[in-house]
Amino acid sequence: MKLKLTKVGEPFLFEFSNSNGNSLKIDAASVIGGGGNEFRPMELLAGSLASCMAIDVLHILRKQRISPKQFAVDIQASRTEGVPSPFDSIVLTIQVSSEIDKSQLERNIRLSLEKYCSVAASLSKDIQIETNIQHIS
Amino acid sequence: MKLKLTKVGEPFLFEFSNSNGNSLKIDAASVIGGGGNEFRPMELLAGSLASCMAIDVLHILRKQRISPKQFAVDIQASRTEGVPSPFDSIVLTIQVSSEIDKSQLERNIRLSLEKYCSVAASLSKDIQIETNIQHIS
Repeated sequence: MKLKLTKVGEPFLFEFSNSNGNSLKIDAASVIGGGGNEFRPMELLAGSLASCMAIDVLHILRKQRISPKQFAVDIQASRTEGVPSPFDSIVLTIQVSSEIDKSQLERNIRLSLEKYCSVAASLSKDIQIETNIQHIS
Repeated sequence: MKLKLTKVGEPFLFEFSNSNGNSLKIDAASVIGGGGNEFRPMELLAGSLASCMAIDVLHILRKQRISPKQFAVDIQASRTEGVPSPFDSIVLTIQVSSEIDKSQLERNIRLSLEKYCSVAASLSKDIQIETNIQHIS
């Protein structure tokens, strides 16, 4: 995996790109002088976990020949106080259309976080990952 | 921190957004049926680490009244074989204009990864993070 991060603006504005030519802006929090208007590093970290889990879950459902009409993940994360300030808790609320069985989905989520998801396996074991399921119409 | 991930395309295409209204697409690898043309979760994880470190390093340099003319990070990451396949090594090569003293920069990088960077503190201790410095003209 080859990626590039390039400073494109003062004082902390970056462009991040992958080998497919995708790019996105990353900035620091305004409290340390960043613009505060772009994605921040810790947001990308939380998004990487949620998307890894979501892809796994949809992949397992697909093998079970199930395709939810709607699927979204609401992500709430909290950080420890002090410096550094890693995540101590990430709560992933899976919002899925009501035709999907909750207990089957729950099993798939657990399979992802415990067996398949490489982002989860790259994170500190001190981070508590909690999941919920919400049926949406 | 509140974030949202929404499935926007079949089978694994997502839009990820933060509370500032920024959004980016995330997709799975083509090997499991993803489009393979967007950022992938593990790429975002590597980018979150590189940008966290980069912001810290520029922040410390700023306090030292130093502003590099150019600053970029080349990211190479490798993953363990098997399932899951977490990162085992991330190599960050900091490319900086030649007026910046390498040993001072080296100290700042170490300060970031050992003391300040919340992404580094959120990662598994099994991941080996290596850094290099390259002067660019």
